[in-house]
Amino acid sequence: MNLTFFPEGTTIEILPEQTVLEAAQQVGVDIIATCGGKGRCKSCRIKILEGEFSPPTVQEYKELGEHGIQRQFRLACQTTARSDGVVRIVPPVVERFHQILSHTEKLQYPLDPEISKQAIILPELTQEEQTSDFEQLQQQMTSPVDRIDARVLQHLPALLLQNSRHVTCVCWNQCVIALEPGDTVEHLYGVAFDIGTTTVVGYLLNLHTGAEMAIASELNAQALYGGDLMSRISFTRQDPQGLRKLHLRILETLNRLIDALCEDAYIAPQQIYELTIVGNTCMHHLFLNIDPVHLGMAPYLAAIRQRYVVTAAEMGLNIMPQARIVMLPLIAGFVGADTVGVILATGMHKSRDLKLAIDIGTNGEIVLGTSERLLACSTAAGTAFEGAQITHGMRGASGAIDQVVIDDDVHCRVIGDVPAQGICGSGLVDAIAQMLDTGLINPMGRLLAPQEIVRQGKSLPEALERRFASQGRNKHFILLHGEETETGEPIVITQRDIRELQLAKGAIAAGIAMLMQNLHIEPENLHEILLAGAFGNYIAKESAVRIGLIPDISLERIRSVGNAAGLGSQLALLSQEARREADQIAQMTEHVALANNPAFQHTFAKAMAFPDK
Amino acid sequence: MNLTFFPEGTTIEILPEQTVLEAAQQVGVDIIATCGGKGRCKSCRIKILEGEFSPPTVQEYKELGEHGIQRQFRLACQTTARSDGVVRIVPPVVERFHQILSHTEKLQYPLDPEISKQAIILPELTQEEQTSDFEQLQQQMTSPVDRIDARVLQHLPALLLQNSRHVTCVCWNQCVIALEPGDTVEHLYGVAFDIGTTTVVGYLLNLHTGAEMAIASELNAQALYGGDLMSRISFTRQDPQGLRKLHLRILETLNRLIDALCEDAYIAPQQIYELTIVGNTCMHHLFLNIDPVHLGMAPYLAAIRQRYVVTAAEMGLNIMPQARIVMLPLIAGFVGADTVGVILATGMHKSRDLKLAIDIGTNGEIVLGTSERLLACSTAAGTAFEGAQITHGMRGASGAIDQVVIDDDVHCRVIGDVPAQGICGSGLVDAIAQMLDTGLINPMGRLLAPQEIVRQGKSLPEALERRFASQGRNKHFILLHGEETETGEPIVITQRDIRELQLAKGAIAAGIAMLMQNLHIEPENLHEILLAGAFGNYIAKESAVRIGLIPDISLERIRSVGNAAGLGSQLALLSQEARREADQIAQMTEHVALANNPAFQHTFAKAMAFPDK
Repeated sequence: MNLTFFPEGTTIEILPEQTVLEAAQQVGVDIIATCGGKGRCKSCRIKILEGEFSPPTVQEYKELGEHGIQRQFRLACQTTARSDGVVRIVPPVVERFHQILSHTEKLQYPLDPEISKQAIILPELTQEEQTSDFEQLQQQMTSPVDRIDARVLQHLPALLLQNSRHVTCVCWNQCVIALEPGDTVEHLYGVAFDIGTTTVVGYLLNLHTGAEMAIASELNAQALYGGDLMSRISFTRQDPQGLRKLHLRILETLNRLIDALCEDAYIAPQQIYELTIVGNTCMHHLFLNIDPVHLGMAPYLAAIRQRYVVTAAEMGLNIMPQARIVMLPLIAGFVGADTVGVILATGMHKSRDLKLAIDIGTNGEIVLGTSERLLACSTAAGTAFEGAQITHGMRGASGAIDQVVIDDDVHCRVIGDVPAQGICGSGLVDAIAQMLDTGLINPMGRLLAPQEIVRQGKSLPEALERRFASQGRNKHFILLHGEETETGEPIVITQRDIRELQLAKGAIAAGIAMLMQNLHIEPENLHEILLAGAFGNYIAKESAVRIGLIPDISLERIRSVGNAAGLGSQLALLSQEARREADQIAQMTEHVALANNPAFQHTFAKAMAFPDK
Repeated sequence: MNLTFFPEGTTIEILPEQTVLEAAQQVGVDIIATCGGKGRCKSCRIKILEGEFSPPTVQEYKELGEHGIQRQFRLACQTTARSDGVVRIVPPVVERFHQILSHTEKLQYPLDPEISKQAIILPELTQEEQTSDFEQLQQQMTSPVDRIDARVLQHLPALLLQNSRHVTCVCWNQCVIALEPGDTVEHLYGVAFDIGTTTVVGYLLNLHTGAEMAIASELNAQALYGGDLMSRISFTRQDPQGLRKLHLRILETLNRLIDALCEDAYIAPQQIYELTIVGNTCMHHLFLNIDPVHLGMAPYLAAIRQRYVVTAAEMGLNIMPQARIVMLPLIAGFVGADTVGVILATGMHKSRDLKLAIDIGTNGEIVLGTSERLLACSTAAGTAFEGAQITHGMRGASGAIDQVVIDDDVHCRVIGDVPAQGICGSGLVDAIAQMLDTGLINPMGRLLAPQEIVRQGKSLPEALERRFASQGRNKHFILLHGEETETGEPIVITQRDIRELQLAKGAIAAGIAMLMQNLHIEPENLHEILLAGAFGNYIAKESAVRIGLIPDISLERIRSVGNAAGLGSQLALLSQEARREADQIAQMTEHVALANNPAFQHTFAKAMAFPDK
């Protein structure tokens, strides 16, 4: 039998006893199967477009729900074909995405989005009057309206005629941006995006109720052209089409996420009327197709910092063409709207208590202060915390070691309880912290040899001793022996991995130190440390303190706040008050420049070392 | 030798002794030659793109000027080929276009266009500062700027880098709509359009000095789908692509006029930053691609009346893409921005004296009142005054009879002093007025037979008697015998022509009467009658009074004011004050509905008759 994948058009052969997943993998068609094809996750979701297939299994009902099954969603790992068919692979949502700040915290702002809907019936005129369709519409609206987009105006007379003058008016900032037949006020949706250098997250919100309807995230497709900001900026200089390529890549990513969100929530992209976007300054520029050339050279100037609005049609996003895309304001060339989002979501700008927030992504953004004064800086943490440039590094997905305990031996926890494939950022921090505690690494970051440890008078259990190894001059420490891993190869921490981590944590720690120096603050003055971002969610606080990533304060005053940048984006979508506060935050937050700052270089060098126990 | 016409691609053969005009006419390629190929006008202008041609003649230097010749413009009637070549036919400017209101009258408003330019140099920052390119730009601007178009923002950083931060900023309503390298403040142009049902006129203005640089006009290409408004509205209902076709036709016309204006003034279309447009409500809707369906049925509702702005890119006009197109406001479904333009240009809205303005085009727009109160109406005059539907009717171009005197015989003046081809509107009105005076037509509009005239005791000179003829039952009166005309056929006025004129003038006269009844005004209360539009320019005032087209007041109080609608469009382009007044005019002017009004039907029927002497 033949199975065709839409829209790619690839057709493969499928045998009666093969699942769609097996048939696809056999010929190299990529379907992600996070749980290994056991029907325990929905990463291999497909949608059946044509043909007869096996009836849904219990697992499929569990993962996809009655409603999903009705809409022809299936799991590729559970489904076999009974005739020729056509299916679509549904892009998987990145797993392990959690929201730590709860829904109630969102509602500290009134639900008052800039986008609004009102159903109106324009009275039929019985005689000639000096008015117009638009003026009649203005009269029916309870909030003032003074403009109408040209594309909407063009269809106004015909729409009124076809729907007995009964329409729903979609307004944004006193401008009519869409008109729909009949009463559609309950269908009002928006997406809040957080565009990270590595990961892009989108939140589909019901703006009528304030409810979150779906979350989706994907790797930023720009990563193909460079993992960090500087390499992407260089790419725009080296390749004459570089800017365009990066711009199109992020649009593709957003369009894919929008499709995934709409699939999940069973709504149409045309019902999305507004997007809010946070991201660092470079992501902001690349999304808007602005040459980021100035961001890469002193004095690191952004093209624009204030809140900026474009339409979906202008940018080529596949939602309602006149939908507004609101780019939240930036703080400086290296401190973007993502930081504004963190401040907004954590309420630091309204807090009388001194707080320190750290958002660790490919760049580390750090904010320190109170409602009186806020300082922010950004440091290039690199991608070590995201698992890149680490020998067995990987993202925090199924198969990653995410917790490590070392006592008489090494004990690893693996995400998804499957044979390990590598180690993610939080696992790496745990491993290094534990290796410091057990004296396997010295404060300068050197991986000691077993005989050095014994020479210092420490005991070295035999199980641990067996984990020391080397390849030529490169020493490493084995976390998992080959027999315990997916690949059969051991998973190790090398001396180079330790150096990479030192660079990353040194950059963050030095940034924190710089802000604290600027405000003449000591760790004991800190009321709270807030760890934002996916990494901040999973890192063990004691390990973060142990390696000197964050100041040493009591653990109960260290709190993970989830994807605060993304939450800030959501708040700005849900509430105009939050949006105005975002503008104030961008205005008030002082940027502390670290690049070319000799004091920072010095602090950085010092911060690479690990604290003594 | 082969001669190719660009962009059509037509290639024709041309002999060494043939002019380009002759060679073109021989094979049916249309080149208009108003003066008959004598080198006395520039209607046959071509531009040489490739090839060798005869040297320019004295007439060509006279018509095209040294500068035109340098730019490869030639007259087709004077030019012979010396090799294969490629030429472009330059669309001719409609002749006999005069501006009666002088330049000084335009400057009753301060030169203060909404579009402005400022050259700025952004300071180089020596160290990192918390600002952005756009904020630096805002600081340098002397007038407030709060937005920047996305397309402009996208090029901002690179433009600053390439031009040592020295740029010219083009602003419209506090928004940056273009940035240009270096100092270009002296190059600031705009076009004021008057889109008539039949004719479109464009005025290219230098907005830096206020000077008029070029005028061009063309027939509205929509006429292909119907001569009057109702037939175009029907066309959009009958043909599913009708709206789109009409919309594209008017865009084509405007784009051709823009090209012609730019050619004439030696500027680039990219230097045009703003357009103002006046036109009746249907032209307004068709330009904006709004379905005019409601305009054709009671209660004749416009989609929008207020001043409306779109960009050139949105509409597909070939000027600077972010240029703003300002649609001046409308008064009602049948009284458009052209009437607003007439009121603005004639200052009726500020006058304490009672004035009556009549703009006769395919529709007749009538305004009556003072600064206290203004009434307006529109009547379907049809195309009789434009020469259509008249047996030998033609537009007021070379070869048209435009003045008629009847004494012992008929004396005709022909535009361009060439053998006559037909009769234009002003000639027709003259002819009928004179025929009434000499008793050849009775007050009911019947063309009498010679014996009836004699029976009434009037003498009938022999030369006149010879001019009575008939074809079957259709009587007619010969204005020019065959030997005096271009075609050899006589040019006549038929009974049907007289009826057509009666319908047209009856509609106008009835509209005037309705407004006067509404204000309880008698002709003696009128301080002035203003005749607007091309027709108003050329009509003999005494003839207009004689046929009862306008009220009978002393001739010195009747004044032609030229294309007042077009002048209003220009004023709104030159001055923000004028633009605001246009808004007020649209607000204050009361529309008097004539359609379906029984009183109007009655008045109309009465107004068809001619007044007694």
